[in-house]
Amino acid sequence: MGREQPAGLRHRIHEIIFEADTRAGKTFDLVLLVSIVASVVVVMLDSIASFRSAYGDWFYGIEWFFTILFTIEYAMRIYSVQKASGYIFSFFGLVDLLSIVPTYISILLPGSQYFLVIRVLRVLRVFRVLKFTQYLIEVDQLRRALAASRRKITVFIFTVVSITVIVGALMYVIEGAENGFTSIPTGMYWAIVTLTTVGYGDISPQTHLGQMLSAVIMILGYGIIAVPTGIVTAELTRTKPHKHTTEVCPYCSREGHDADAEYCKYCGGPLNP
Amino acid sequence: MGREQPAGLRHRIHEIIFEADTRAGKTFDLVLLVSIVASVVVVMLDSIASFRSAYGDWFYGIEWFFTILFTIEYAMRIYSVQKASGYIFSFFGLVDLLSIVPTYISILLPGSQYFLVIRVLRVLRVFRVLKFTQYLIEVDQLRRALAASRRKITVFIFTVVSITVIVGALMYVIEGAENGFTSIPTGMYWAIVTLTTVGYGDISPQTHLGQMLSAVIMILGYGIIAVPTGIVTAELTRTKPHKHTTEVCPYCSREGHDADAEYCKYCGGPLNP
Amino acid sequence: MGREQPAGLRHRIHEIIFEADTRAGKTFDLVLLVSIVASVVVVMLDSIASFRSAYGDWFYGIEWFFTILFTIEYAMRIYSVQKASGYIFSFFGLVDLLSIVPTYISILLPGSQYFLVIRVLRVLRVFRVLKFTQYLIEVDQLRRALAASRRKITVFIFTVVSITVIVGALMYVIEGAENGFTSIPTGMYWAIVTLTTVGYGDISPQTHLGQMLSAVIMILGYGIIAVPTGIVTAELTRTKPHKHTTEVCPYCSREGHDADAEYCKYCGGPLNP
Amino acid sequence: MGREQPAGLRHRIHEIIFEADTRAGKTFDLVLLVSIVASVVVVMLDSIASFRSAYGDWFYGIEWFFTILFTIEYAMRIYSVQKASGYIFSFFGLVDLLSIVPTYISILLPGSQYFLVIRVLRVLRVFRVLKFTQYLIEVDQLRRALAASRRKITVFIFTVVSITVIVGALMYVIEGAENGFTSIPTGMYWAIVTLTTVGYGDISPQTHLGQMLSAVIMILGYGIIAVPTGIVTAELTRTKPHKHTTEVCPYCSREGHDADAEYCKYCGGPLNP
Repeated sequence: MGREQPAGLRHRIHEIIFEADTRAGKTFDLVLLVSIVASVVVVMLDSIASFRSAYGDWFYGIEWFFTILFTIEYAMRIYSVQKASGYIFSFFGLVDLLSIVPTYISILLPGSQYFLVIRVLRVLRVFRVLKFTQYLIEVDQLRRALAASRRKITVFIFTVVSITVIVGALMYVIEGAENGFTSIPTGMYWAIVTLTTVGYGDISPQTHLGQMLSAVIMILGYGIIAVPTGIVTAELTRTKPHKHTTEVCPYCSREGHDADAEYCKYCGGPLNP
Repeated sequence: MGREQPAGLRHRIHEIIFEADTRAGKTFDLVLLVSIVASVVVVMLDSIASFRSAYGDWFYGIEWFFTILFTIEYAMRIYSVQKASGYIFSFFGLVDLLSIVPTYISILLPGSQYFLVIRVLRVLRVFRVLKFTQYLIEVDQLRRALAASRRKITVFIFTVVSITVIVGALMYVIEGAENGFTSIPTGMYWAIVTLTTVGYGDISPQTHLGQMLSAVIMILGYGIIAVPTGIVTAELTRTKPHKHTTEVCPYCSREGHDADAEYCKYCGGPLNP
Repeated sequence: MGREQPAGLRHRIHEIIFEADTRAGKTFDLVLLVSIVASVVVVMLDSIASFRSAYGDWFYGIEWFFTILFTIEYAMRIYSVQKASGYIFSFFGLVDLLSIVPTYISILLPGSQYFLVIRVLRVLRVFRVLKFTQYLIEVDQLRRALAASRRKITVFIFTVVSITVIVGALMYVIEGAENGFTSIPTGMYWAIVTLTTVGYGDISPQTHLGQMLSAVIMILGYGIIAVPTGIVTAELTRTKPHKHTTEVCPYCSREGHDADAEYCKYCGGPLNP
Repeated sequence: MGREQPAGLRHRIHEIIFEADTRAGKTFDLVLLVSIVASVVVVMLDSIASFRSAYGDWFYGIEWFFTILFTIEYAMRIYSVQKASGYIFSFFGLVDLLSIVPTYISILLPGSQYFLVIRVLRVLRVFRVLKFTQYLIEVDQLRRALAASRRKITVFIFTVVSITVIVGALMYVIEGAENGFTSIPTGMYWAIVTLTTVGYGDISPQTHLGQMLSAVIMILGYGIIAVPTGIVTAELTRTKPHKHTTEVCPYCSREGHDADAEYCKYCGGPLNP
């Protein structure tokens, strides 16, 4: 992206496909965004039995149209980058490949619905477009807040899983198979459904003891639902604590000064001489 | 509202209908509030079959009473404003119009229950009354906090929709139509019901693999429910950091004084000499 | 409580019943707490049909025992306070009265189960005991945070009710009585069940359009669940912002100074001379 | 752990089993972690009827294998500690004992499924391994935040229980046994299911009055779900306000410097001369 010497056509294609600073680049991003959404919607509609029988041929045609479009795009991406392997094995490179492969394989192995899921992964390509917009800062801030609370969330999930195992075993013993708690894993499934306050109601306690234990778990769940929220909120409040960080020290050119700083905290020079 | 020369009757009507500083204006607001709530309650009760058959004629009469009342009010609003088109095409102008039109159209097209929804939009008129009260600051603060977190919430909803599409397709393939997952959109509906912890239970996983995936999604949902809360909380904490921090000490020029401070807490000088 | 001249027995009883500084006062509070919980548990067990038929007579006897106990306590409270009417018409005075009246009335009007609810109100008396403990500060802080966010929560609940009315009417029109949405109030009930993520599943959308609208409402609900949490959290963070507020100005004796204050913000005198 | 004179074999075993600083210690922790998880998974799979009938003998053998392994470990722990009773009656000592006892008792009392729950308690042993990792700080911070909000959460749970009792009695009277509200405890179970937004739907209000009361409770629950979240968040924000704020400028003695600051941001003096 920061290449000094322009390399003709290749450089121009790279600018259009990978960047979003030029007008052509922005138009390309918009067309790509619409194509991705349209192709995912077609896959979704194709899965509805009544739509499939009525418009199946249309869907088949549109699917091939987008596949060929994405194949051309994929070829041009490989052509235009400096180091092809770097792109191919990157996250987005693999997603780009996975979004065209299933259609070609379906000629050899027709009728397999498992490719549906792979086709639907195309939706991830939208984040590629998002990458070049003003949302970048927001995405980054959310990502940093989540990364900073990574360990606390791990500890938390660990605790939840332990509670789930113990409660699942307890409910299996208390309620038993006749009330739907057919095994410890089923009890754990119920415990997760309850602790997360989803509460399908496909399995629910029938005995008085089971209902009392459930009530305790629900109030417990009510209490611990507060923990991940607290963790993320505390991090989000923290990740942008120094609002005025755009000031640059005139001596050492480093950023990150507090709003009330009068001297550079790295070199000691006055910030506003 | 800030017109210098009084324009007689028109000005007086404007003051009563649009403002809430005079006693007549406040009385008008109260009468309007009661009328709006009463008319919405009538529409609601009219939709209950047993009430309709018993009191249908009464409801019909009351509906016309309020419609004529609101029509007179609408005419007076147009009459009293300086620029009628500005009012008519404003948000509240359109809501005001929509709250009277359905009743008149129902003479031409009787029996259409679709007007019910339009009639119910009257409830939005209540916010017009709220506009003139002490709640204005609170509404504004909430609005600013939500506006500030707009982009982060967009990124978040985008991520949720992507997870929904992929999980919906996965569950469609795993569970299949025999367990209620008849299409990818249905799978997505289930994924949203689960991720948001609503959990109706009208569709729920039956296979072991489906239940395991559900459990993972629920714990994931448990984790990501924290994100919008964190975003809004962080913004709300930020939007009103100090209630009155604009006051500057005339001696040392430092800010950050409490609303009840009379002397500078840094240099001891009087804040309002 | 701050009476200068001791008034003999009356004063002694007041000290035991209303205060918790003496040993006798603490013992009384403990006995009262156990009695309240026990009497509420008896009312609860009495409502279970199988328990009632087996131990109904026991429950009847225990109920009278506690009623007479609470009557004696009530009489002693009236006797010991300086101004009886002030106590009788206070919140706790009324709760104390309501906890004994139903049993006496049940002699005249036997069999009415509506008194159950009034009897159960005894549970509120527990907060009377809580009042004298170290939890007072915590209760007060929670109360202040909720009071400070009162208006924002009002605006919020108002918005939720408006959404509920409009969505309820929409779903009534889309789904209709054949799918359980028999009236607009029923639609509103469903909308509240969905928006609050309770999701019983007793009524759930059956049409594709209804499911799509539901999905939008759920994601909306996911977003707005963040708002009250954000409001309360922001207030709770704020209600104890100045941790070091115990410092008292040596000149004007007022509290509430920030940790970094060097001069009294009320009188300008140096805080640590 | 801080013993001065090495005590040969005993000291070496203690280092491996109880500590995680040496390579052998880390390897032991990893093997232990895998063993615990594997043994719990076996207990879980053994509870599935179809798995039990197919692989029951295998599970029996694996169970004895892990039991003997954990027995050896338990003996070595007792042998290697300085004060055996201190270890045996510690929390982890009891968990270690409970994880081996059930298998031995099952020889005397075969077939009792109640031992399943005790066996599953082994999952708690995983936290023993977690104790020696970098997660220690995170666990500690979460623990401190929860401990600090202990009282507020107690007050909150108390309020929720009071609401539950009153609402449960109200719904019992309104809906009655014919709609599933067979007793006040059942009404309380429903109230908890609703307030916590779990919403199984196994019991749901059928009368109009009951549905209206439910709607109010749900919106109330929506409001109060914010409280524990607010409490924990406020504490989490407070427990780590600044990562390294203990450093004091040697020149102007002011605090609040970032971890990466080399010069005082207030006076420009070097922080570590």
